[in-house]
Amino acid sequence: MHLLGLEHLSRDQIVGLLDSATEFLGVGRDTPKRTDLAGKVIANLFYEPSTRTRLSFTLAARRVGAETLDFSPSGSSTAKGESFVDTAQNIVAMGVDVVVVRHSSSGAPHLLTRHLPGVSVVNAGDGAHAHPTQGLLDMLTIRRRKGRIDGLTVALVGDILHSRVARSNIHGLTKLGAKVIACGPPTLVPPEVAQFGVEIAHDLDAILPRCDVINLLRVQFERQRSAFFPSVGEYAHVFGMTGERLRRADPNVLILAPGPINRGVEITPDVADGRNSAILDQVSNGVAVRMAVLKWACQPR
Amino acid sequence: MHLLGLEHLSRDQIVGLLDSATEFLGVGRDTPKRTDLAGKVIANLFYEPSTRTRLSFTLAARRVGAETLDFSPSGSSTAKGESFVDTAQNIVAMGVDVVVVRHSSSGAPHLLTRHLPGVSVVNAGDGAHAHPTQGLLDMLTIRRRKGRIDGLTVALVGDILHSRVARSNIHGLTKLGAKVIACGPPTLVPPEVAQFGVEIAHDLDAILPRCDVINLLRVQFERQRSAFFPSVGEYAHVFGMTGERLRRADPNVLILAPGPINRGVEITPDVADGRNSAILDQVSNGVAVRMAVLKWACQPR
Amino acid sequence: MHLLGLEHLSRDQIVGLLDSATEFLGVGRDTPKRTDLAGKVIANLFYEPSTRTRLSFTLAARRVGAETLDFSPSGSSTAKGESFVDTAQNIVAMGVDVVVVRHSSSGAPHLLTRHLPGVSVVNAGDGAHAHPTQGLLDMLTIRRRKGRIDGLTVALVGDILHSRVARSNIHGLTKLGAKVIACGPPTLVPPEVAQFGVEIAHDLDAILPRCDVINLLRVQFERQRSAFFPSVGEYAHVFGMTGERLRRADPNVLILAPGPINRGVEITPDVADGRNSAILDQVSNGVAVRMAVLKWACQPR
Repeated sequence: MHLLGLEHLSRDQIVGLLDSATEFLGVGRDTPKRTDLAGKVIANLFYEPSTRTRLSFTLAARRVGAETLDFSPSGSSTAKGESFVDTAQNIVAMGVDVVVVRHSSSGAPHLLTRHLPGVSVVNAGDGAHAHPTQGLLDMLTIRRRKGRIDGLTVALVGDILHSRVARSNIHGLTKLGAKVIACGPPTLVPPEVAQFGVEIAHDLDAILPRCDVINLLRVQFERQRSAFFPSVGEYAHVFGMTGERLRRADPNVLILAPGPINRGVEITPDVADGRNSAILDQVSNGVAVRMAVLKWACQPR
Repeated sequence: MHLLGLEHLSRDQIVGLLDSATEFLGVGRDTPKRTDLAGKVIANLFYEPSTRTRLSFTLAARRVGAETLDFSPSGSSTAKGESFVDTAQNIVAMGVDVVVVRHSSSGAPHLLTRHLPGVSVVNAGDGAHAHPTQGLLDMLTIRRRKGRIDGLTVALVGDILHSRVARSNIHGLTKLGAKVIACGPPTLVPPEVAQFGVEIAHDLDAILPRCDVINLLRVQFERQRSAFFPSVGEYAHVFGMTGERLRRADPNVLILAPGPINRGVEITPDVADGRNSAILDQVSNGVAVRMAVLKWACQPR
Repeated sequence: MHLLGLEHLSRDQIVGLLDSATEFLGVGRDTPKRTDLAGKVIANLFYEPSTRTRLSFTLAARRVGAETLDFSPSGSSTAKGESFVDTAQNIVAMGVDVVVVRHSSSGAPHLLTRHLPGVSVVNAGDGAHAHPTQGLLDMLTIRRRKGRIDGLTVALVGDILHSRVARSNIHGLTKLGAKVIACGPPTLVPPEVAQFGVEIAHDLDAILPRCDVINLLRVQFERQRSAFFPSVGEYAHVFGMTGERLRRADPNVLILAPGPINRGVEITPDVADGRNSAILDQVSNGVAVRMAVLKWACQPR
């Protein structure tokens, strides 16, 4: 089974993955390593820098008993001009069961599915398209802290336009019955998201009291070459989650952020480290989600 | 036991390694991981960029139950000026059983054998000298697809002069009774290869009908600083394997290429991905060959 | 339990770690892998280049049955501006038990202890402050080769000022009853070390006959931007350990060097590779010391 984006999964498939991840929580620290994928080989093909996602998939793979192979383009055949597909085919020919791929081009994981017969492809983030395991771990975090997803109001705040995290949240959360609000400057909220039932907002303070969950998207300085907002200070003032703003929200509002966070930009340190924040829970839940996804990917199609 | 080059092995030793590799085929996917080298530590010392060879050795080591340690010079003591031999001695002192070494200098693995008593050295490619596991995997691929090696005619096409793959193919194939033709531009085929019983040719089309196997050496743009042939287009025209050329060869001719391939240079995509091509088989067989080599290297001398 | 510096350990704790390491010697080669830390995860956070220390901790972790996660700043979230503490918290949130940290800033490991509740921090070298596992492995090497530490005279030679190895040796050796002499050019021996009972010397030849052990600190060219001594040749002449100088020392004097060594600077090749040298023993003992330290770090506080 491939996992390319949450748009391709049914509600039941998503719930099944969240249930499976819940079962995996605590493996490692509290319960012994699993052997579900003993003998399987997971290849990590990361064409973009990543700390947490690559390590999270690696640890998840080992916790279900699989071997991992790590490929990143520096110091490799890429320097000799080998194509993306040829590299992937070669690594897979060594006897790989699942390819976990991160790439700056949207659609790169989908491209691999057409050239790697017999192998499952898991999207670990492709361009601005999708980051389905991030979407799942956000949902698992919400479900564990709020007890449910159905009926909640979840705001995605910031750069919706360039965010694969936003896209995966929108598909997953709406399928599970949440109301999603996309909130950001007009330049960064594409009107097309309305077609998925998403409410569009440009004033965080106006929607604040209605939110059960606020997911603060990262300002991606490394992608933002043209100016989508006047200044970082201006952005932080209007869309940053500060202690002052938090006091005007629901006292139990859940604060998520996909990280790495820019302290003082999309979130202030007091909020990031405060009791409403689930930022480190997201990381912990991410390992369990990836265990579930890898097990799911190894199922016969 | 060291593996520095196939020139040092007897015919029986080579056949023994191919037989052992054949036994290892399928480990991982079809049969459980082996424990032949449980408790052993394999250190990968790669001083040149490599994707498939490093990963192949790593996966092979784990599939026979060994631990692996990866060393590459970037971000390491090399930046502090430590010598090649000192680095190797230090890594070995941690309790390493086999050192797998790739280096741009011919003879680097042999140098290590004189400074690392009690450790086996496996050459993963040294300068233009040898790449014995590539030679073995090429032979395993031929034997599996053609049923034998003895009596076959195998053409090595391209840059024989700078190719460690060519050198290892020549030693291995001639020992196992194949007829080897070295075919390339006069600047890139050293006359000395004739001393190993190799036929020298400069016209691929003339030898094409006689070949059972054609091994298309990679044009190593990263090594080719001086011009050994007029242009890449000219090279591709005269020595590249195209669909049109393939139709004039034996219908069952086996096409090998050590990769990473330059599509459109030494091989066109239709040939690389066609039914005569064994390029991805070579990669799969490579893991089994390296399992056999690592097991062999761990034998008492 | 954290291990930040040997100054925080009692004599009994140090002896306990050396005894534990002694028990671990031979694991791997002679006796099976241990399972003391099965299910534990050790994260290596190395913000400075390192070959031997990182590999040594990795191999040690695996030999006691733990998983390892490797983080180094290149190609990671550091490129996206994430802070040191945030990166560490994120990696730990994945389910890490021990963080092994190397950093160019003195105090970085201590900083982590305040932000990583429930996790043990092991200092793998922080700025010029401490390198406690190097200190322990130096002591283990002395104890194994000399039979004791108490009552021995140990000279630390070279750049005491910038050396975290010197600092950890001073704390550990004096606690175990050795007499320590800090010997180097006046610019590189801080008078403050006298407060730990260390004798200060500037003439290696004068103290040579009294020494049971000589630990030759590395000239850290990569740190030495301002000139602390006239020239490398001058330094080698006055403080380098040569065969000629060795002949004027005790015939059984033990030569240590933390490496990577600069052959011809602090030590000549004939001494480095001679019978008095324990340089490679130090590396072997280092793995056992790190097994002991990781096991100790996993104890409940």
